[in-house]
Amino acid sequence: MLNWNNLDTLSAYKELKVKKKTDLKAVMSGESGAERVKTYCVPMAEGLAYNYAAKAVDDDILASLKKLAEEAQLSEKFETLYDGAVVNTGEKRLVLHQLCRGQLGKNVVADGVDKRDFYVEQQKRIAEFANKVHEGKITNAAGEKFTTVVQIGIGGSDLGPRAMYIALENWAGQHGLLKMEARFISNVDPDDASAVLNSIDVAHSLFILVSKSGTTLETLTNEAFVKNALTRAGLDPSKHMIAVTSETSPLAKSDSYLDAFYMDDYIGGRYSSSSAVGGAVLSLAFGPEVFAQFLEGAHAEDVLAAEKDPLKNPDMLDALIGVYERNILGYPATAVLPYSQALSRFPAHLQQLDMESNGKSVNRFGEPVDYPTGPVIFGEPGTNGQHSFYQLLHQGTDIVPLQFVGFKNSQIGNDVDIQGSTSQQKLCANVAAQIVAFACGKEDANNNKNFKGGRPSSIIIGEQLTPKSLGALLAHFENKVMFQGFLWNLNSFDQEGVQLGKVLAKRVLAHDTDGALSEYSRLLDI
Amino acid sequence: MLNWNNLDTLSAYKELKVKKKTDLKAVMSGESGAERVKTYCVPMAEGLAYNYAAKAVDDDILASLKKLAEEAQLSEKFETLYDGAVVNTGEKRLVLHQLCRGQLGKNVVADGVDKRDFYVEQQKRIAEFANKVHEGKITNAAGEKFTTVVQIGIGGSDLGPRAMYIALENWAGQHGLLKMEARFISNVDPDDASAVLNSIDVAHSLFILVSKSGTTLETLTNEAFVKNALTRAGLDPSKHMIAVTSETSPLAKSDSYLDAFYMDDYIGGRYSSSSAVGGAVLSLAFGPEVFAQFLEGAHAEDVLAAEKDPLKNPDMLDALIGVYERNILGYPATAVLPYSQALSRFPAHLQQLDMESNGKSVNRFGEPVDYPTGPVIFGEPGTNGQHSFYQLLHQGTDIVPLQFVGFKNSQIGNDVDIQGSTSQQKLCANVAAQIVAFACGKEDANNNKNFKGGRPSSIIIGEQLTPKSLGALLAHFENKVMFQGFLWNLNSFDQEGVQLGKVLAKRVLAHDTDGALSEYSRLLDI
Repeated sequence: MLNWNNLDTLSAYKELKVKKKTDLKAVMSGESGAERVKTYCVPMAEGLAYNYAAKAVDDDILASLKKLAEEAQLSEKFETLYDGAVVNTGEKRLVLHQLCRGQLGKNVVADGVDKRDFYVEQQKRIAEFANKVHEGKITNAAGEKFTTVVQIGIGGSDLGPRAMYIALENWAGQHGLLKMEARFISNVDPDDASAVLNSIDVAHSLFILVSKSGTTLETLTNEAFVKNALTRAGLDPSKHMIAVTSETSPLAKSDSYLDAFYMDDYIGGRYSSSSAVGGAVLSLAFGPEVFAQFLEGAHAEDVLAAEKDPLKNPDMLDALIGVYERNILGYPATAVLPYSQALSRFPAHLQQLDMESNGKSVNRFGEPVDYPTGPVIFGEPGTNGQHSFYQLLHQGTDIVPLQFVGFKNSQIGNDVDIQGSTSQQKLCANVAAQIVAFACGKEDANNNKNFKGGRPSSIIIGEQLTPKSLGALLAHFENKVMFQGFLWNLNSFDQEGVQLGKVLAKRVLAHDTDGALSEYSRLLDI
Repeated sequence: MLNWNNLDTLSAYKELKVKKKTDLKAVMSGESGAERVKTYCVPMAEGLAYNYAAKAVDDDILASLKKLAEEAQLSEKFETLYDGAVVNTGEKRLVLHQLCRGQLGKNVVADGVDKRDFYVEQQKRIAEFANKVHEGKITNAAGEKFTTVVQIGIGGSDLGPRAMYIALENWAGQHGLLKMEARFISNVDPDDASAVLNSIDVAHSLFILVSKSGTTLETLTNEAFVKNALTRAGLDPSKHMIAVTSETSPLAKSDSYLDAFYMDDYIGGRYSSSSAVGGAVLSLAFGPEVFAQFLEGAHAEDVLAAEKDPLKNPDMLDALIGVYERNILGYPATAVLPYSQALSRFPAHLQQLDMESNGKSVNRFGEPVDYPTGPVIFGEPGTNGQHSFYQLLHQGTDIVPLQFVGFKNSQIGNDVDIQGSTSQQKLCANVAAQIVAFACGKEDANNNKNFKGGRPSSIIIGEQLTPKSLGALLAHFENKVMFQGFLWNLNSFDQEGVQLGKVLAKRVLAHDTDGALSEYSRLLDI
């Protein structure tokens, strides 16, 4: 029987609160620092490693974090999740995104079918469809190949797939795999759809309409936008559009689409990159084999996440350290800083994943919690960020914990040697330097040039950003967020906080307003 | 004589600390809410308006904020700045970015020249150069027109100009003004330059090398990258490249460039969008007239910023309310949420502008301050963000103040009517709804569906995002950040916090490391 207890009721948490803090600057200096970098490191899947040497923890704190993991039954809760329990209690749903990429536990039967079979079947259908498009067996009405794929979706149907597409675009180009250029329409701002439509050749474009419910306002509006454009160009929209949706949605089994691929209610939008939501666009853009490798990497990381000992489980350890920083050290934000231009939109995806999952004030039973939960998440790729907001990270009045990501090799491999080093070496040198600068600081008689140090960071290091390592990276953060939700005793899989705005927006459009809402509507000429 | 005193020594600040807080939910409900929306509004330049009805202030608090502005001598400090005092005390420099777009005060003479004349002269030279490119008088070696302009720069030489380019791209397209497509290379990650170079026709591309000092590692490395590509294509790099730099930099007056345009040490990178740094790329992309309009809008806002009464000065008022939220209410982050896809990278620019300017722990005399300074700034365009991190904003345990931006009209004007409203109306309805949802919340017997409200926001509303209103919007935030720096008694114009990382990165590349730095270098194969 699982105990779903609040974080502040756990004895290991109380122990951590009074435990001596780590003097990060001291322990990261000299030989002890070198030793930490060597030992405070956990292997991840696909050649990645999670190095937490520069986090403000020591063996004593880690021992308490391990106790906390046991007391909070993190492994057991993950097991109950992947075995098919109704972990999304608010919406009374199973949580099965890990099952899209492999089976970790028991067979999960829901809605009368084996769900693993269902996800594999969808992936297979997508692969066949994508192959036919690439082979020219599915074409536009004139019998010409599609050259561009356009995803129409918002939130989880946009940020994750878009970030993954950008992450693999150069890699695929390098491996001669890029079959189709992908574009994305998300915002209800009409300029978003207009700009994308103006920049593509609609006659050779295949649109993917992505909405689990089939009722998302932005997505349906943008669908109409696209259909208008196709019709104006003398084209039949139903020959240019596929749907990714749930089997029970109005979009399923409709003559309006060339075909439809399915997800279900057990996969939240922000966890849907490894479902048909990411699968359709990535399989069309890069070929189904690339998407299969991405899933393989994600599954390999999931397997590690099932390990009970947090010191051998990078996803759980990252989660525990994050909660320590949030609830014991009191830091309200976390920055995600990939030293890889290909991961330029990865922080925006993690921002949704983390803040939408754990930005909550009530526990899974609907009772208010008395401690901070999910932090603000933000980030931009390095080295760009170094010339931007790093000033505050180094010398601001608040401490912001950092999550770096770096790879030894670039994706394209084209490089120049300037002043005795390549660009890739400069990139890596910069992330190494930043970690030490944040942790150790540097004293200066001029206070304005003084760096206090003591600013914690971790780094995930990999050989290269490939479909497999990208899958592992994504799964790492999904699992981290899940474990943090368990620690905070939240339901990380619903999002009731987005409802009120929708209701009020409908009232504005129906001119059913009063008070302030009425005045804002007037100011905005609605 | 100006008093440069710390915030916590000011009597108006002490008064504010003990003053009764505003119950935002209460005052924004019913008729009082409607009345606030009508009255808590200050006109900005170019038809914009700053509406702060949904901020947690009332007439009493506003009166104290006005006292605070007077006591901190905000107007006088701005005046001394635009009249040419050495306000950047750390680097002993004048601060003259406002002078790029118009003269607010006395003639400023520095380095033996009238600086307004100097900036106007550079703008004129850029206009002439851009016109010659557009007219085909300056061409590639084969006598063909350039079709693409590529900015090579990082930090302030990238984020601002890139955000402004994206903001105006569709508008210019709509007005038949788009002359050249612009691209940007910033990151030292070799994949950044490779990807851009792979996607353009280098033979018809004009590159702008932007570095004030002429020594920025990333930019010089990427210059070499680009020169390699040009040479490999059998082209002469010096016929494809211009420089934007200071007159004393190694890039000035060099045969390596077609021409060079100048800025100076009195314009910080993050404030350089209205200097030659933004001017070259925007004038080439859209024509010099568009850039001139952008400057006109910025200057019009600067004129308003010189107004002494904060209730008539939107930039000063925004600054005061922000400091109230940061230092009295204790909120550590602020989200910038433009309901305009064209402003998709505007938050990233503001992130640099704000966090690099005011992310500091010592005052302008190098003495540590005892109060929080610049907050974390982040944001994404709406409605996209609604389907992402808004969950935390609505129901998370921390309150995050919000800055909305919205326009009555889209840029392209192409729209569809679905379910009785256009996309633009849906966009505007959503931002109106969000403000009220955040402020007023909604009670629900189910705690998970309960919205506490009391979450403050402001909105800047405009007719349309045009070059002029974009200029005003940018100047608003530049001035806001400046006033906040005055309130916190910081030097907002240096960035010593970025130095240590540079020093350590050089040591890594020289293999002059020990301890942790040595081990990180090993892990990253440097």
